[in-house]
Amino acid sequence: MKDLKLKKLLNSLEKQQGTQIYNYTVPDLWNCFDYDPNKMIRLASNELMVDPYDFYSSVIKDYILPNKKEDMDYNNSLSSNRKMPKRNYKGGDWVKESVCYSTMIRVSSAWDFDRSGKLEQSNIYKMTETGSFVKMLALLPLLKKMGVDVVYMLPISKFSLKDKKGDLGSPYGVSNFNEIDPNLKDQLVGDDLTLDEEFEAFVEACHILDMRVMIDIIPRTNSVENDLIKDHPDWFYWIKASEYDNYKVPFVEGIKPTTAPTIELMKKVYQDEDTYRHINMFQYDPKTADPKKWEKVRNSKNLSAAIEKEYNLRVAPAFSDQINDPQPPWTDVTFFKMYQDFPKETVDFLDTKDRAPYILFDTIKSNMYHGKKPNIGLWEKLADIVPSYQRRFGIDGARIDMGHALPKELLEMIMKKARENDEDFSFIAEELQPSNALKAKEAGYNMIIGNGFIMEPRIWEGNLQEYMYQSIDLPIPTFACGETHDTPRLAARDGGEDLSRALTILNMFMPNGVPFINSGQEVYERQPMNTGLDARENELYMLDESDPYYTKLALFDLYQFHYTNPRRWELPDILDKVKVIRKKYIKQITNKDAFIPLFAHHHPQTFVGFGFFKKTKTAKGNNLIVVANTDTYNQHYLQVDIRHLRDESKNQEMQGKLLFSTHEGPREFHQFIDYNTLDIHLGPGEVKIIEL
Amino acid sequence: MKDLKLKKLLNSLEKQQGTQIYNYTVPDLWNCFDYDPNKMIRLASNELMVDPYDFYSSVIKDYILPNKKEDMDYNNSLSSNRKMPKRNYKGGDWVKESVCYSTMIRVSSAWDFDRSGKLEQSNIYKMTETGSFVKMLALLPLLKKMGVDVVYMLPISKFSLKDKKGDLGSPYGVSNFNEIDPNLKDQLVGDDLTLDEEFEAFVEACHILDMRVMIDIIPRTNSVENDLIKDHPDWFYWIKASEYDNYKVPFVEGIKPTTAPTIELMKKVYQDEDTYRHINMFQYDPKTADPKKWEKVRNSKNLSAAIEKEYNLRVAPAFSDQINDPQPPWTDVTFFKMYQDFPKETVDFLDTKDRAPYILFDTIKSNMYHGKKPNIGLWEKLADIVPSYQRRFGIDGARIDMGHALPKELLEMIMKKARENDEDFSFIAEELQPSNALKAKEAGYNMIIGNGFIMEPRIWEGNLQEYMYQSIDLPIPTFACGETHDTPRLAARDGGEDLSRALTILNMFMPNGVPFINSGQEVYERQPMNTGLDARENELYMLDESDPYYTKLALFDLYQFHYTNPRRWELPDILDKVKVIRKKYIKQITNKDAFIPLFAHHHPQTFVGFGFFKKTKTAKGNNLIVVANTDTYNQHYLQVDIRHLRDESKNQEMQGKLLFSTHEGPREFHQFIDYNTLDIHLGPGEVKIIEL
Repeated sequence: MKDLKLKKLLNSLEKQQGTQIYNYTVPDLWNCFDYDPNKMIRLASNELMVDPYDFYSSVIKDYILPNKKEDMDYNNSLSSNRKMPKRNYKGGDWVKESVCYSTMIRVSSAWDFDRSGKLEQSNIYKMTETGSFVKMLALLPLLKKMGVDVVYMLPISKFSLKDKKGDLGSPYGVSNFNEIDPNLKDQLVGDDLTLDEEFEAFVEACHILDMRVMIDIIPRTNSVENDLIKDHPDWFYWIKASEYDNYKVPFVEGIKPTTAPTIELMKKVYQDEDTYRHINMFQYDPKTADPKKWEKVRNSKNLSAAIEKEYNLRVAPAFSDQINDPQPPWTDVTFFKMYQDFPKETVDFLDTKDRAPYILFDTIKSNMYHGKKPNIGLWEKLADIVPSYQRRFGIDGARIDMGHALPKELLEMIMKKARENDEDFSFIAEELQPSNALKAKEAGYNMIIGNGFIMEPRIWEGNLQEYMYQSIDLPIPTFACGETHDTPRLAARDGGEDLSRALTILNMFMPNGVPFINSGQEVYERQPMNTGLDARENELYMLDESDPYYTKLALFDLYQFHYTNPRRWELPDILDKVKVIRKKYIKQITNKDAFIPLFAHHHPQTFVGFGFFKKTKTAKGNNLIVVANTDTYNQHYLQVDIRHLRDESKNQEMQGKLLFSTHEGPREFHQFIDYNTLDIHLGPGEVKIIEL
Repeated sequence: MKDLKLKKLLNSLEKQQGTQIYNYTVPDLWNCFDYDPNKMIRLASNELMVDPYDFYSSVIKDYILPNKKEDMDYNNSLSSNRKMPKRNYKGGDWVKESVCYSTMIRVSSAWDFDRSGKLEQSNIYKMTETGSFVKMLALLPLLKKMGVDVVYMLPISKFSLKDKKGDLGSPYGVSNFNEIDPNLKDQLVGDDLTLDEEFEAFVEACHILDMRVMIDIIPRTNSVENDLIKDHPDWFYWIKASEYDNYKVPFVEGIKPTTAPTIELMKKVYQDEDTYRHINMFQYDPKTADPKKWEKVRNSKNLSAAIEKEYNLRVAPAFSDQINDPQPPWTDVTFFKMYQDFPKETVDFLDTKDRAPYILFDTIKSNMYHGKKPNIGLWEKLADIVPSYQRRFGIDGARIDMGHALPKELLEMIMKKARENDEDFSFIAEELQPSNALKAKEAGYNMIIGNGFIMEPRIWEGNLQEYMYQSIDLPIPTFACGETHDTPRLAARDGGEDLSRALTILNMFMPNGVPFINSGQEVYERQPMNTGLDARENELYMLDESDPYYTKLALFDLYQFHYTNPRRWELPDILDKVKVIRKKYIKQITNKDAFIPLFAHHHPQTFVGFGFFKKTKTAKGNNLIVVANTDTYNQHYLQVDIRHLRDESKNQEMQGKLLFSTHEGPREFHQFIDYNTLDIHLGPGEVKIIEL
């Protein structure tokens, strides 16, 4: 076992303690590790004044390292240190019992540490105020407090800054899969550690704390400025640079907006004039066009500019694979050329095969349309992304962005290679449709993302109930969540912070759901990170005009979460209690057969009731009942039917324990209408958890 | 001329620039000197992040020193550099044309520079956060902006910390006249300058900016722990230490509470049993009691403790000189023994002359009761306080605390000695009663404090009008002010900030008044500095409970003014405009014969109107009209009679200029009911200044 990078990091931090006086503040929420009260000053702003070197040293030394066990290889996946269960278990299924925290490192640990009023990439101390793996260590105790055991990261790879969106650009415009975004380097440790080492240290810390690390990989789209162009210009689509401004998505007469590209429709597409206007723009790649010249041009410092100058060529922007989707081209990203030839399903519709490769609804939808000659060099490259992160950092799982748009064979390659390294490696499908869960399962995924963020907040339409009760039947789990980095925030929905609280708790018990906390959700962040999905007209304006982050989006801009919210401790404190209950019943929560949906007489749409039971000899203390009123405006008196739970569990207790409530403390519970009926009062937005 | 200490200070500050990075904030109001915008960061908290060394260097280098003239001796009073006017001028009368700013250095330049949430005597940088002469330099540009030309300081002498009031103790319990309060030393300059040099630099800076410096001296009372005890124990009154706890003011049967000690009443006093209970407590001083022992004891490190141990003696606390005043003894201060013998006026009432000197209503009221043998050593000491500050710092004037309770001859000595050094030295009497102004004038004072703080805020009782219109007849001027360090704040009176604004402007034009701004008043501070005079029952509670300075009093506690008040720039900006108008008419404002009180038909009690005129050949632009509605709730339409002004000034203009209004911008003025009547609309709390 090699030396821990975490120790190297600790040495570097300790080395710099006391070299000068720092007036540096962190949100008090970042101190869930009992930092020495004599070393900090509490501020009325809900911040702590600390010496940064001492503070970050302390979390490593006093909180993380004491959990280190001998004979564990923290640089490999947690699973590789353990035995896989034998029955009914597919590699990576551990994710089904986990609690995921979705973080964008750049944002989650960002803070205006010098209180200059602005989040700076270099503050008065020349310190990075955007997030980093180093600073993220201080948030791990908070995550542990909330019961999180999977740290799921939005892309951390280097991305293109060309025509970047917002202040900083989107991490989804990857320009180099294997290089980590250099902006994640923390100046706190200067040159003592490389960025890769900082990430290594972070993964080690997660593993020591029994948390797994998952990354987000994006094999389908990538930045128009990409380090791969130099060696593989033929993996990209090209158009004339001089015609770039005319580039637009072809509009096909007689087809409705946003229509899936079936073969019949593609026939029509290839008969349309605008399709030819569009595909006529495409050119052969610069190497193919003039191999000799390429040998010189490819070594240019600014490669894009050189290609444009010497060849009049530019990489063609991507666009939606749905016909007549009104979205304009996505100018920052492009598609890889998955096949060397045209799709066999549509090639006959084409006027002539003597054409440069082009982007169209068929060529980019590689799960439906396939060439005969896979671009095998590219495929190998893409299939090596995960193994590369496994080898270097020992990650535990990955989400595959737009995996459903990849050729089936490529997807299989990606999964196979990852599981050759670690048979217990977990994959999450970027699949929003629950109806596609079986397909995803068959493709090798352990779970899907699902559409909780659409369903859960719609409590008045009955969508919450539908999602909560019906997900049980999916072949693989879905995320139990009401928001993601692409969607509106729960706290900004009708019902606000109280709705967010109720749903966050409920998600911890959703049968066949994997609880998912979207960074910022725990402090009732209102501003979405992106307005990508389900955004309302005013979605950009969720903050006060006076807020420094008004209209800013975390995905693109310099952004920090509102960690000093007066209610910031509420959800962490609640989850700290709830995680214990979840742990006790985790086998039941993840077992379809131990679950009974609970209903109330005059069942309101905003009510959700879960029953779980263990089969025990004594039939006591073996029933868990979770009931929630997601109506944050009105209280409800409900008669909850537990007949089936009684039947299944044999539990006959007429007295139980109220283990938890959002509205009162723990107490004895003996509100029964009769043997089979609970007499439940739920205040507005209340969740009660009862054990019989 | 010696080298400026200000330059020495600048060198020290510049030396430390860039030695480390400081996260240091000052209120933005402290930057009235155009500090380089590239060197500061503006915060939403209305503070500026600056390097303290650069910031304070800049005010010296870029604002103060450029005003320095050759051949001026800035270490001597401003007057000593100028010729005194010849006619109708008594030395020190320059104060009549001045604008005074009353500052308690410890508080006025105090700030939580490191934003730790607490005002600290040593912050994270080991810097002093309480005020100092060095930091006060940064406020001089603000004072200049407001037209201030006299910096009047509450006591700056070393005071006793024994049984101190509040966090820091009161500067009125002086323990050494000639030593400056060591807490005013600023750690910004370390040992590069002595505290005396810092004060020297401050006086130089004021003089360079054409501002005079006045101090507050307290010859009557002083701390019970006093450096003079060592050499002059016989200048003090002593009681048995073992009886200290029984010390109380004698209560005399048959005399009403708080009655002046006339001779007839003193006869009665000396017949009362309780008087003898009281004076029996007094003992001879330790030196007189045992001169030999004294030679040893006087060198003890803790002198009070040694005297108590060796002699069973303690200095007797002071109390009110009014018979049956219900106030308990003032345990922190005592009186000097002004005479070596008993008062000749009352000595015959006494049972026996074989008594130790004692404190009683007669012995402490030295303006009424006199011994035959003045304590001449003490008198010389007291009369040298001012000359000592003149010699060392070149101060320009002084207020004498309780001067009316000193022997007439001593007061004469004090004034004579000061004016031997500087014939233009100015004295302010601590005389609140306007009816005593003539006495004060005859005693040699240039002005009295007066009772503006009682009269002005009582707008509905007509007291404001009385004060504003009738002070013209006083033989010497009184302060034109609505608050002092001992009284409630104007902004905390009924009418609030708008009342404070109207009165602050009006005071700039009060005939025979000397405008007086109480530090903090310019930012509408609500919390009094002390609850000494005219305090209401809830006076201590003028701040929000959440305010860190809730219930704190600047005179005793760690306190900073609310310099970041959203309306902080309002009064400074107004005074910046108004000072120009005042300057143009200063000879008229200070000349009884150039003033016409203005009245309105249906003259409301809240209306004040001043007319001033110059006798000019053209009779144009020679009338100044100041009208104010101090009713902050209602607007008033008023017909203001200017007949007398017309008559005196010969001005016949029917068009003038609105030079200033609190409610609108400057404009032409032509609202006349008729030739002799102005048609004036005044909004709630509005002041209008018109020139015809």
